[in-house]
Amino acid sequence: MTIYNFAAGPATLPDSVLEEAQRDLVSFPGVGTSLMEMSHRSKTVQDMIQSAEDDIRSLAGIPDDYHIMFLQGGASLQFSMAPMNLLTPGGHADHIVSGSFAKLALQDAQKVGDVRVAGSTEDQDFVRVPYQDELNLDPLSDYVHFTGNNTIIGTEWPTEPDTGDVPLVADLSSNIFSKPIDITRYGLVYAGAQKNLGAAGVTMVLIRDDLLARSAESLPSMLNYATLAKSHSAHNTPPVFSIYILGLVVKWIAAQGGLEQMSRQNEDKAQVLYEALDASEFYRGHALPEHRSRMNVTFRLPNPELEAQFTADATTEGLVELKGHRSVGGIRASIYNAFPKDGVSALVSFMKEFERTHG
Amino acid sequence: MTIYNFAAGPATLPDSVLEEAQRDLVSFPGVGTSLMEMSHRSKTVQDMIQSAEDDIRSLAGIPDDYHIMFLQGGASLQFSMAPMNLLTPGGHADHIVSGSFAKLALQDAQKVGDVRVAGSTEDQDFVRVPYQDELNLDPLSDYVHFTGNNTIIGTEWPTEPDTGDVPLVADLSSNIFSKPIDITRYGLVYAGAQKNLGAAGVTMVLIRDDLLARSAESLPSMLNYATLAKSHSAHNTPPVFSIYILGLVVKWIAAQGGLEQMSRQNEDKAQVLYEALDASEFYRGHALPEHRSRMNVTFRLPNPELEAQFTADATTEGLVELKGHRSVGGIRASIYNAFPKDGVSALVSFMKEFERTHG
Repeated sequence: MTIYNFAAGPATLPDSVLEEAQRDLVSFPGVGTSLMEMSHRSKTVQDMIQSAEDDIRSLAGIPDDYHIMFLQGGASLQFSMAPMNLLTPGGHADHIVSGSFAKLALQDAQKVGDVRVAGSTEDQDFVRVPYQDELNLDPLSDYVHFTGNNTIIGTEWPTEPDTGDVPLVADLSSNIFSKPIDITRYGLVYAGAQKNLGAAGVTMVLIRDDLLARSAESLPSMLNYATLAKSHSAHNTPPVFSIYILGLVVKWIAAQGGLEQMSRQNEDKAQVLYEALDASEFYRGHALPEHRSRMNVTFRLPNPELEAQFTADATTEGLVELKGHRSVGGIRASIYNAFPKDGVSALVSFMKEFERTHG
Repeated sequence: MTIYNFAAGPATLPDSVLEEAQRDLVSFPGVGTSLMEMSHRSKTVQDMIQSAEDDIRSLAGIPDDYHIMFLQGGASLQFSMAPMNLLTPGGHADHIVSGSFAKLALQDAQKVGDVRVAGSTEDQDFVRVPYQDELNLDPLSDYVHFTGNNTIIGTEWPTEPDTGDVPLVADLSSNIFSKPIDITRYGLVYAGAQKNLGAAGVTMVLIRDDLLARSAESLPSMLNYATLAKSHSAHNTPPVFSIYILGLVVKWIAAQGGLEQMSRQNEDKAQVLYEALDASEFYRGHALPEHRSRMNVTFRLPNPELEAQFTADATTEGLVELKGHRSVGGIRASIYNAFPKDGVSALVSFMKEFERTHG
C-alpha cells in the first residue's frame, strides 16, 4: 500500500532524496567513510555546505549582499536571536501576530527588548492574516516581524506586508521556497528545514549584510549573527547531515523546475482540496478563503467523533497524520513541496467516500 | 583498502550503527516512511527519544533526579546557556581553563555575567590540567565549570576537580561515556554528540533537577533549561535523526559491555600509542604524561616538513585525518569509543616504518 504522509513537519521528503541519502550513508562517494564521520573542516564537508549555499542562491535569486547561514535550534531560537541582534540601543520592533507561532515569537522577543504588537488577528481566532490597513507600523521601529504561514489554522500571507523602509523580518518555516521570493523585500528570513527544505536539525537564515553591523560584541558567540555569518556556518560543528539533506532537497526543487514550478504545483494541489471542501456541506474549512494556506489545508467534520473516525479510516487507507493540531482539533492535510499530487487525489477520493457513507 | 578515520570530531562511528541507519533510512520499521519525515509528536519518534533516554540512564547510572535533554547548538551554545540559567542574581561562577575550548567557554560565559578564572594552565600551553592545589575555588560561587578533555593538545582530567558543595558543571564533549561517570558529582554535564555519542547536530545535557529552579522566567524559551526539561526534548522540533543516531550509539556501547568495557578498550588503545611515542626519540608527545588524553593522542615529528610528509603518506595507507589542530600543528590521532583497535595497530606500524625510513 502506498503511504501518503500528511504530517505538518517533519514532513514528506522526496523519494529520490531519501534514496540518495540511503545509498551514500555508509560510504560517501569519493571518501569511503560516512559523511556523519567526517570533520566539518574537511574539504568534502566544506564543499557540500558551499554547494548547498550556491544552489540556494541560484534557486531563489539571493544576491551577494545577503549571507546564507545554516544554524541550529529551529525557528524557535530565532524568536529571541532576531531581537538580540537587530534591536538597536533604545530601539523597538513591531510584531504582527497572525497565529500561534507568531505569538510565541512575540513572547520570546518581548523577553529580549521593547517589542510591540503592530497587528493581530487573535480576536478572529487567526482565521485570516491582518489586512495592510489594520497594521499600526511605526516607521521608526528597528524592524517588523511577521510569520508567513500559519500551519495550525492553515492561513498564509498572499504577499508580504508593506513596511516601507523598515527592515522586514520573517519566519517562513512553513512556506519557504514553496513559491518565488523577492528577498530584497526582506532584511532577515529564517526557516526551520523540516517542512519544505529537509529534515529537522537545521534552520536556514538569510540576512542582509548591513544588518550584521547591529550585532553587539557583547552577545555570546552562538547567538551573534555577525560571528556566525563570518564563520560560514562553521563557528562550531554544524549539523552536517541535516545540511546535506537540505542541499539534496534544494537540488531536487531545482530539478523539478525551480520555484515557479513549485508554486504552480502547490497552487494546483491546494486548489483540488479546497474545491472539494467548497463543494461539500459536510466539510467546513477553518481559514477564510482569501487567506487560505497552500501548505496546510485544515477543515472540520460535523462533530469530533466523525473526525476521529475520519482519521482512523484514512490511516487504514494509507493516508496518515491527518489529525489537526491539538489546539484546534479537526483535520489538517499538510501538502508541502515534496508532497505528491497523487496523495491529494487519494485524499479527495477518500473524503468523498467518507461523506457518502457518513454524511 | 580499510580506511581508519582519526578525525577529532565528527569522528568514526560504529559500522553496525551506520549499517542499521542505512537499512532503515527510507522506510522505518513498522511505519513505512522515513524517520526524517515523521512528526516529532508521533508515537514512533516519542518512543525513539524515550528509548535513547532510558538507555542512557541504564548505561551511565543516571538517577531519576537528573533530567536528560537532547538540545541543539553544540557545546558552544551551552557556554552561554549554563551561566544564563545557573548564575543567581548577584552571584558569580568559577571557570577552570585547561584548553582552548575551556577558554571559549569562559569568554562566552563572561559575556553573560560575573565569571572568574579559578585556575588555568594557559601559561604551560595547556600541556596539563591544573592540579587541585592550584585551584582558587570560591565556596560561595554558583558553580564551577571545567572541560573534561582537551582535544587540541590531548590532555584529560584523571578525575573531576573537587569543588566541595559547589555544583560542578562540565563540558564532556570529547570524553563522555568513554569511561564510567559518577553523575552525582555533577550538577550539569553537556556534550556535543559528534565525538563519542554519534553525529553532529545534537547535544546531550544532563542536569540535576534542583538546579532547574534557577532558570529565570525572563529567559527566552529555547535558552531556558527549565522550559526545555519540562518539554522532554520537544519544546520545538528536536533534531530527530541526530537523536536517533545517538540512541543507536548508546545501544552499541551497552552491547560492547558498557562503560567499564569502553574504559578498558580506550585505555588499551591509548597505551599502545603512548608506548610507541615513549619508545621513540623521533616522535615527541605534546601532553605531560600524567594528564595524557585517552581520546586524542598528539605528537610532533622533528620538523613541519616531516609532519606534512607523515600525514600525506599515512593518507595513502588509509590512515586519514591525522593532521593536528591548526593552532598547534603536529599530528593528532583521535581514538574515541568507536575507533577500532586495529586502526591503532595500523598507525603504530606506520609510525615505526616512517621513523625507519625518515628518522
